[in-house]
Amino acid sequence: MISPRGGTSSLRVERLEPGVRKSRKDQVAVEEPLEIRVAYSGGGPLESRNVSVTMRTPGHDFELAAGFLFSEGFLSSRDQVKEISYCQSDGPQEYNVLSVRLRDGVPFDTALLTRNFYTSSSCGVCGKASIEAVEVKGCQLLPEGTLEMDAGMVNGLPDLLRAGQAVFEKTGGLHAAGLFRANGELVVLREDVGRHNAVDKVIGTGFLDGGLPWHDKALAVSGRTSFEIIQKAITAGIPMIVAVGAPSSLAVELARQFRMTLVGFARGGSFNIYAGEERILDWKEEGS
Amino acid sequence: MISPRGGTSSLRVERLEPGVRKSRKDQVAVEEPLEIRVAYSGGGPLESRNVSVTMRTPGHDFELAAGFLFSEGFLSSRDQVKEISYCQSDGPQEYNVLSVRLRDGVPFDTALLTRNFYTSSSCGVCGKASIEAVEVKGCQLLPEGTLEMDAGMVNGLPDLLRAGQAVFEKTGGLHAAGLFRANGELVVLREDVGRHNAVDKVIGTGFLDGGLPWHDKALAVSGRTSFEIIQKAITAGIPMIVAVGAPSSLAVELARQFRMTLVGFARGGSFNIYAGEERILDWKEEGS
Repeated sequence: MISPRGGTSSLRVERLEPGVRKSRKDQVAVEEPLEIRVAYSGGGPLESRNVSVTMRTPGHDFELAAGFLFSEGFLSSRDQVKEISYCQSDGPQEYNVLSVRLRDGVPFDTALLTRNFYTSSSCGVCGKASIEAVEVKGCQLLPEGTLEMDAGMVNGLPDLLRAGQAVFEKTGGLHAAGLFRANGELVVLREDVGRHNAVDKVIGTGFLDGGLPWHDKALAVSGRTSFEIIQKAITAGIPMIVAVGAPSSLAVELARQFRMTLVGFARGGSFNIYAGEERILDWKEEGS
Repeated sequence: MISPRGGTSSLRVERLEPGVRKSRKDQVAVEEPLEIRVAYSGGGPLESRNVSVTMRTPGHDFELAAGFLFSEGFLSSRDQVKEISYCQSDGPQEYNVLSVRLRDGVPFDTALLTRNFYTSSSCGVCGKASIEAVEVKGCQLLPEGTLEMDAGMVNGLPDLLRAGQAVFEKTGGLHAAGLFRANGELVVLREDVGRHNAVDKVIGTGFLDGGLPWHDKALAVSGRTSFEIIQKAITAGIPMIVAVGAPSSLAVELARQFRMTLVGFARGGSFNIYAGEERILDWKEEGS
């Protein structure tokens, strides 16, 4: 049995190199399921619904649940939440089921549980329909003039992200998402085996402390950018994403549609701007 | 508008290096939603259910649908499928909705749509419950003695995978999964923006041509290994996974439980064996 301690767990592996086979201790990133339940009362008795089971790295689970429920459209403000707590288990407490209790009278749209965001009733589901679904959720165009960043700073965000990562160096198995100010100051960083979870954990901090929308901050992510990552950032009002990896076609389309700045391949002293180049200032001359 | 051509689409990006900002043409991996429907008749009229919407790279969609339905437990054999086809659209055909028509009388377990595999009715969902859920699906222990691979060959699979990738070099944005024989011969390779989709596409080929289970073949994947990747390989009977990236804790536990060989960090002349080392033979001496 692998015993989790925080974000990593320790186990023995066989390490093979030409001519050498040796057993050694190694660290892997912990992955465990988290069941998110929502408890609500629409005037009648308290009801509880299982909303999602996600495979995640334990830690910052309340932020993960809050960020997920917000970025997926179930919740819109901190005031709707009365309490978040782990469910009690009959057996040993596993801390893998949590309940988000809504304030009395706050409605819960259970239709979101059965309806898929990306589907339309017609037979023509396509990338365009997906983008329209984000608009339908009430997401706003990202504002202009709230964030500008020097190209050198943009280029440095992945290193700052890596420097802030607690677990990656040990396991190589965790994605990271970090929120930064224009001057490169790190606001919050979260790690997870799931790319989306890392972003949800970051957004969850802002949802819970009332700091959203984040119109003057940039999000750096360790991996690639997909439609869902961009969608989550839009709901949090983040106007810039800087990714170490590549974007997908739909990520670029969605970013352009919502006026987000999207950077990819930020590594080794250069990067690509896929959308919203006006927020990135040219490299400053040395010494200027 | 980005116009997709196969797995990649072309667009203009700004490339920034210190002192240089230039516009150039670039390729990104295409990401589009695919809605998978299942049409079935339990004796009465034909019914159709939306089973999943996944964000995927277009191409090999029938294999993706078949592999997904098989690896998630909706289907167990090729004989259950009468036809797979794209739905017709009123507007321009987007090829983003497909229907898997079951043979008359083949039952379809719609309970799987509402029940989540990982949840139990108790409050104690945990990694252990997830692993039990895989057992409940009827998955068998992987057999011994059906596959052995030389360490040098294991080490070379990622390069063989990369060599076979059609799109990666252009975009850097696609995951790959490839099925190999013990002698390093590539059987099938698929790419996708989603790690799980690439694996489903590979498994779908075996489901559709009746070649499963794959007891004598190994799966190489370009990224990390999670619980779900291991689960899918187990359903297809694949006894060995060689990954370029790191495994999660639950991936290792599941592999050990089902007697799978799990390799990670296969790069730069060495690798780690996390489970099932008996299938990997030591590096051969040069010239022997």
